[in-house]
Amino acid sequence: MKKFAFAAVAAAALVAGQAQAQSSVTIFGVADIGYLSTSVSGVKQQQITNDLNTSSRLGFRGAEDLGGGLKASFWFEAAMTPQNGTSGGTSTTNKDSVNPGGLTFGRRSTVELSGSFGEVRLGRDYTPTFTNLTVAHHPFGTNGLGNAGQMYYPLKGTSVGGTSAQTNVRASNGINYFSPNFSGVQVNVMYATNNQADNLGAVGDDGKYMGGRISYGNGPLNVALATGKTKYATGDYTQSNFAANYQLGAAKLMYLWGENKVGVTKTTSNLVGVQYQVSETGEIRAGYTMLKASGFAASAGVDDATQAVIGYVHNLSKRTALFTNYSVLDNKGLGKQFVVGGGDKSALTAGGSSTGYEFGIRHSF
Amino acid sequence: MKKFAFAAVAAAALVAGQAQAQSSVTIFGVADIGYLSTSVSGVKQQQITNDLNTSSRLGFRGAEDLGGGLKASFWFEAAMTPQNGTSGGTSTTNKDSVNPGGLTFGRRSTVELSGSFGEVRLGRDYTPTFTNLTVAHHPFGTNGLGNAGQMYYPLKGTSVGGTSAQTNVRASNGINYFSPNFSGVQVNVMYATNNQADNLGAVGDDGKYMGGRISYGNGPLNVALATGKTKYATGDYTQSNFAANYQLGAAKLMYLWGENKVGVTKTTSNLVGVQYQVSETGEIRAGYTMLKASGFAASAGVDDATQAVIGYVHNLSKRTALFTNYSVLDNKGLGKQFVVGGGDKSALTAGGSSTGYEFGIRHSF
Amino acid sequence: MKKFAFAAVAAAALVAGQAQAQSSVTIFGVADIGYLSTSVSGVKQQQITNDLNTSSRLGFRGAEDLGGGLKASFWFEAAMTPQNGTSGGTSTTNKDSVNPGGLTFGRRSTVELSGSFGEVRLGRDYTPTFTNLTVAHHPFGTNGLGNAGQMYYPLKGTSVGGTSAQTNVRASNGINYFSPNFSGVQVNVMYATNNQADNLGAVGDDGKYMGGRISYGNGPLNVALATGKTKYATGDYTQSNFAANYQLGAAKLMYLWGENKVGVTKTTSNLVGVQYQVSETGEIRAGYTMLKASGFAASAGVDDATQAVIGYVHNLSKRTALFTNYSVLDNKGLGKQFVVGGGDKSALTAGGSSTGYEFGIRHSF
Repeated sequence: MKKFAFAAVAAAALVAGQAQAQSSVTIFGVADIGYLSTSVSGVKQQQITNDLNTSSRLGFRGAEDLGGGLKASFWFEAAMTPQNGTSGGTSTTNKDSVNPGGLTFGRRSTVELSGSFGEVRLGRDYTPTFTNLTVAHHPFGTNGLGNAGQMYYPLKGTSVGGTSAQTNVRASNGINYFSPNFSGVQVNVMYATNNQADNLGAVGDDGKYMGGRISYGNGPLNVALATGKTKYATGDYTQSNFAANYQLGAAKLMYLWGENKVGVTKTTSNLVGVQYQVSETGEIRAGYTMLKASGFAASAGVDDATQAVIGYVHNLSKRTALFTNYSVLDNKGLGKQFVVGGGDKSALTAGGSSTGYEFGIRHSF
Repeated sequence: MKKFAFAAVAAAALVAGQAQAQSSVTIFGVADIGYLSTSVSGVKQQQITNDLNTSSRLGFRGAEDLGGGLKASFWFEAAMTPQNGTSGGTSTTNKDSVNPGGLTFGRRSTVELSGSFGEVRLGRDYTPTFTNLTVAHHPFGTNGLGNAGQMYYPLKGTSVGGTSAQTNVRASNGINYFSPNFSGVQVNVMYATNNQADNLGAVGDDGKYMGGRISYGNGPLNVALATGKTKYATGDYTQSNFAANYQLGAAKLMYLWGENKVGVTKTTSNLVGVQYQVSETGEIRAGYTMLKASGFAASAGVDDATQAVIGYVHNLSKRTALFTNYSVLDNKGLGKQFVVGGGDKSALTAGGSSTGYEFGIRHSF
Repeated sequence: MKKFAFAAVAAAALVAGQAQAQSSVTIFGVADIGYLSTSVSGVKQQQITNDLNTSSRLGFRGAEDLGGGLKASFWFEAAMTPQNGTSGGTSTTNKDSVNPGGLTFGRRSTVELSGSFGEVRLGRDYTPTFTNLTVAHHPFGTNGLGNAGQMYYPLKGTSVGGTSAQTNVRASNGINYFSPNFSGVQVNVMYATNNQADNLGAVGDDGKYMGGRISYGNGPLNVALATGKTKYATGDYTQSNFAANYQLGAAKLMYLWGENKVGVTKTTSNLVGVQYQVSETGEIRAGYTMLKASGFAASAGVDDATQAVIGYVHNLSKRTALFTNYSVLDNKGLGKQFVVGGGDKSALTAGGSSTGYEFGIRHSF
């Protein structure tokens, strides 16, 4: 009798969640909220909003030592919009944009196997080119008024044929490989399928992604080159960038070049920036970016633009910081595409400019 | 080589979730399910449903001691519908009602800074007026057949211009301040922006919230007064209430006055109630509420109403309880707005009544 | 003063999450991703997709000892789609199909009370018939190319009157009872309400579920019989099945009979299968299923079919495994309903066949 009782319990556990194989899971995240005030061609707006210093998130991850240097692990990480409690979106085909609103592990959702050969991640993960846009290579990373996304992401809704490129940050259905570090050189390559439902055959490669990155670091110097291509039936998307930075005493000097091609359109950006540690707890950040646009229809309202940003981060601890930023963004010619802080574009006059300031708190856990 | 390897890992960790700043996160929640039987103008219904004693939820929170009495913390809390596994909704503009279905931290989503000055919470939080409707000030709080929401919330879908007030419980995009306790007196004030996307300038104040509460407690006596106003282009919404309760031996005697104005419509309610500890594990709850309605179009079917409720809670432990409630609700005149237990309003005849009973289990974790 | 301060804190805690009743919550889950290649009537497709060995999931559960052998507990478990970070769906009425995309505890969402009387679960849970389709009774359970769902679930979208049966795996709004084990005999019965919003009276029983299962286990022998019925206004749905398996040394021999009736349509399946432990870490699985269909309109394209599957699981640990499967599926006569691996049905010719292979990794936590 006892044996069957055990079997029944074991089967129930298997169905219900592998209860017999319990491991330690880490919960982690960031809550970043602040006050944002923008002026777009003179029209003023104010918000209590998120992600002004670091992207808010909530995640679960864990690892298992398999012996012999082999490790299995998982990583489920969702974007958070802490001012209203919703989450961020994802893409299921690397072509669609899916925003369920409820908690979605769209930042990263992977199962990994790692060892002396490096690390393989299966699932949704960052594309190699995105790594060069983070705060390690751009003074503001992809957050706040000075965020790299403004001028280093492809332009949504302006592409040929109506397809918006979705793989500038992450790709779903991917195999992502990171090599070990060979004397300062590291390689990352990624491939992703499109997984279009019920008509996988018919759509061919529409939404398939492939990209790579090579980086070199030695003492104070870091350089990295990355490129990625997504096939779209309406026109392929290619993102490329090159980052170089040098630690000079308390200052990290940064240069970043980036290019986005969607169909026949192209934007190219160059940034010079700095992160300067003024005290044990304080850091000044500054950056100046110049963007060149070509191939857009006149009606798209896309033209050259420049953006200047300065900010200050005051660390209350390793996990918690107060911060403030100020930015000026100028469109040139017919341009009315770029505004600071996700402000109201409809207020923008052609060639108009926008300014903004913000301050807030970022708490990591 | 080693230095760069470390830098690469640190940058990856920063991108991927602040792994280097790990802290302890608390998971908490409530699962409350039971059987509900209602009769609306004689039409009977039965459900296995939720939140009959306490609102089901799932949340994550944590705090960090910053030294010098200062503390940073976060709180992400979602409503749960445990009978089907979905979550509850939120509002992103304090005007819209968003119900993603998936886990949404719509109950509370805040980052906090607290110290000798009190506590500041940024994000989505309870409005000051809601505090007076909880189980501390109403015998049934806002759950089950006797819930305060029935007669102390604004009426959805009956307002002028089609805007339903969304801030009777919580507001998004908020700054919420709680003072320290000064000899029994505590003050809470809250301000929230509307954050309407892409046209912040054009919509002006539509959805902006401001409110406050002052409470006094001394020995067995507690009194509290609160009010809040939300600006809506279709007619402002004002909620005010006053709670007074007195602990007389094992009985807590309760009085609650509340008013909701949406545009030109108004409902005013008065309750007398009691929570009586009959044994170490048992509590009887009872309440009688009278509602007055004015300013509604005849077609809205809103008129005066009364509700009587009696219930019993049997605590199996501090965390788990069994409970049962019974209620009678009478509409007056042309009224066909109010029914017990979220029953089928379409069955209600003008001036009709409904009755219901329920029993279930509530488990906190 | 002190007393009130405490009361205020206690009330706030109650509102905010039962902070005073903190317990230990277990996080658990599965991440299963792999490569799938299918050929449907010669049209080839490839995906990096999920759940090829075990259903991916993320869950939270915990229990409280109430003394006297009584235990209260909860279980919130969501399906995960780890290749893109979304979750799976649920049903709120046992008639609708709800797929919020964000984290939804549609796999199981229950509060439980257990003791010497057995266990009662309230909420969304597995129906008794589903238990016989799991990996304990079918060599592949309900995952991957050989999954039981293919031929033991009702056919979606082919039913009379347009209602797809939703209760073949789980039912919402349920009371689910499991008896203690009496000399190897165990009984499970379940009842679920339909909870249709705002018109509970009018729709009567549409969506109500009732089912049961009786199982017997003694030494190497396990047998189980289950049946369940869901009332639908468009035609009731009945699922029945019988499982028998026998552990013969390292081999578990399996037989499974199952039947689905939706309105006037019926499918009946018979499987013979085996799970064979070839080494301490390796298991071979194989199965052959024959399906008979009747009562379908010719336009539905449903006819008899057979499926053969063989697979291998290599356990890296108790929690992590690599696996591979191969399957051939043949439709008969006019049939173009069944394909392996959720491939593109539109490519299928009448009476056509499909083949597929897959390999991947499953990590439990």
